[in-house]
Amino acid sequence: MDYYVSDRVKNLKPSAIREIFKYAADPSVVSLSAGNPAPEAFPAKAVSEISARILSEEPTAALQYGVTEGYAPLRKAVWDRLSSKYGIGTENDDILITSGAQQVMDLLTKSTVNEGDTVICEAPSFIGSLNTFRSYNAHLCGIPLEEDGMDIAALEEALQTEKNVRFIYIISNFQNPSGVTTSLEKRKAIYELAKRYGTLILEDDPYGELRISGESIPSIKSIDKDGIVVYAGSFSKVLSPGMRLGYAIAPKQVLQKMIVCKQGEDVHSVCWSQMVAARFMTEYDFEGHLAMLREIYRKKAAFCMELLDKYLVPAGITYHKIEGGLFIWCRLPENAGISMTDFCREAVLRKVCVVPGNAFLTDENEQSSSFRINFSTPTDEQLEKGIKILGELAGEVL
Amino acid sequence: MDYYVSDRVKNLKPSAIREIFKYAADPSVVSLSAGNPAPEAFPAKAVSEISARILSEEPTAALQYGVTEGYAPLRKAVWDRLSSKYGIGTENDDILITSGAQQVMDLLTKSTVNEGDTVICEAPSFIGSLNTFRSYNAHLCGIPLEEDGMDIAALEEALQTEKNVRFIYIISNFQNPSGVTTSLEKRKAIYELAKRYGTLILEDDPYGELRISGESIPSIKSIDKDGIVVYAGSFSKVLSPGMRLGYAIAPKQVLQKMIVCKQGEDVHSVCWSQMVAARFMTEYDFEGHLAMLREIYRKKAAFCMELLDKYLVPAGITYHKIEGGLFIWCRLPENAGISMTDFCREAVLRKVCVVPGNAFLTDENEQSSSFRINFSTPTDEQLEKGIKILGELAGEVL
Repeated sequence: MDYYVSDRVKNLKPSAIREIFKYAADPSVVSLSAGNPAPEAFPAKAVSEISARILSEEPTAALQYGVTEGYAPLRKAVWDRLSSKYGIGTENDDILITSGAQQVMDLLTKSTVNEGDTVICEAPSFIGSLNTFRSYNAHLCGIPLEEDGMDIAALEEALQTEKNVRFIYIISNFQNPSGVTTSLEKRKAIYELAKRYGTLILEDDPYGELRISGESIPSIKSIDKDGIVVYAGSFSKVLSPGMRLGYAIAPKQVLQKMIVCKQGEDVHSVCWSQMVAARFMTEYDFEGHLAMLREIYRKKAAFCMELLDKYLVPAGITYHKIEGGLFIWCRLPENAGISMTDFCREAVLRKVCVVPGNAFLTDENEQSSSFRINFSTPTDEQLEKGIKILGELAGEVL
Repeated sequence: MDYYVSDRVKNLKPSAIREIFKYAADPSVVSLSAGNPAPEAFPAKAVSEISARILSEEPTAALQYGVTEGYAPLRKAVWDRLSSKYGIGTENDDILITSGAQQVMDLLTKSTVNEGDTVICEAPSFIGSLNTFRSYNAHLCGIPLEEDGMDIAALEEALQTEKNVRFIYIISNFQNPSGVTTSLEKRKAIYELAKRYGTLILEDDPYGELRISGESIPSIKSIDKDGIVVYAGSFSKVLSPGMRLGYAIAPKQVLQKMIVCKQGEDVHSVCWSQMVAARFMTEYDFEGHLAMLREIYRKKAAFCMELLDKYLVPAGITYHKIEGGLFIWCRLPENAGISMTDFCREAVLRKVCVVPGNAFLTDENEQSSSFRINFSTPTDEQLEKGIKILGELAGEVL
């Protein structure tokens, strides 16, 4: 039987990253392609203790239906922390708890983007978000990413020429995949442009707490006096991705429509996850936990960069030194003359899996001279083994 | 600022049921408007035990990212049970774990329905599903519900005249809100019509395990030899709604597109919920638990029908005797001359909350002479108090 497929989904392919995960599932392949937190970063003991108390003290609250907006103590804990620590949220804003930050991208697109309308994003950008935008038949317009954020001239040109731009999507800190952090100057410039051209900004900040060096930069949301920024936060990198918890802090009018969409998607997020996160934030040393995470990733990132210097740089591959996040962006020489897909395919045959840069472009068929390495998931041994193989491969083909 | 709202969401209102919940939150109001399982129906002790074991034995699996298709042991447990017990699922089908059954409605609509395409549903039908269909700008076509299911002649006429019918939505057992169970004869007729007119059937079966009397009827999915039925199941009524777990058993080609859409919505469902449900189904007496639930609801339903006989029937209100589910559908006399919305508003002012029948129609502004009572959430005392008030009100206005 020929099944009818909607226009919006017809050309949507499973995420290339998740397809590459299939290779990564082969235990003989070293996977540097995922984005999983390090297992030692999970506060398993605390979650276990909190969970036991919740299920003994208030089992009905954990097991019964909840409200779409989210568990009130968690909404308050997140709001209070972001408001006092980062100046995020005004009296015109409110907070919605979502099933992972991915759902923020989904709900904002669903509630503000008609099929064919434009979403402006960084090029490259996070493939998961791009696929969400695609799943509503949004027209994607990629703005080249420089060392300090989007090319502002290209952004302004896009705002002038693209039709029905509904929002600008930006991962402001330690961008996935490039590792780039947008400078304060560019954050302000992007904000002013969005304001001038009457469009929203979707600021996605899953890695903001994972800064391992340098000075923290105010979020775009913290300078939002006009109610044009939707801020997406996540518990996936600071607590647990398996709990599927994220949140949106956004103008109330925008949030109201997102809530209606969430009702139709999953009614509300899992009560247990929300209750565990609320207690972890308020009854445990959350800031101490974050400091511990930064220490884990600081060591892993430093070790990874050492390996890159040792094995890849001599072969002509350069990389963007990172100040946080979970990824490092490596670049082949301009004149390498090999397609990134071919390079990554050959790497997988040699038992190391990385993601080709073109997977992160608005058009996957465009050429890219970069690939993405994740250092949070592999062990030190796996990291060394994998990068050594990449170095050998690079030595042969470059 | 004027925020841009997408066409699909522009006219979408928060669910009337959930709006009515706001009244129900007032502790002095007796709420007969919800659809929550009885708190005593939750296996809190078992969940607590299983959760403790999971978090001590395999914390990383519970806290790390999972796969979009769902936790393999849960997929197997559900598949094996439905296959062996109800003959559901062929070699052309597969199973997807979702974040509540609501997400099945969402994913199927997203992947098969273009804006303006038609979804045929029962009239009345579950407001949550109708709103999901509306959120993709589907055109809804309601088929009047008779005592034994849809009016088959009206269904055939709709299939002949409506454009681009993508699926027929049916709650086959103890329909919400009407309590109607579709007869085997009509299930077969609906299946044959769907086949003849080349459309899918979305069979939603959240209450199937809650039969309290009469003989169980084979699901439409169990007679599906042509790969045209998507079966939606739920853990909300048989384990816990707060865990947000449902599933789709559907032709592989259809499921593949739904999986791609799920990636973009929430990546995967919460690991903890899936692991708890899998162990509860395989290591505990799941069938015994279901028998216990049926006993709870059998008593509650019988008591509710006694109260209706005592307080509402003398005032001229009739109701549909139920064989399962959580709801009873009450009907005012045809010549009552009072709008259902007015009746329910007056009831809330007298401190009892029920849902007006028009909330369940494809056009909420149509007239309805019915309202829905839920008997699973209130205590016996609340039920008696609420129904007595409704009886007094009916005595005055009818």
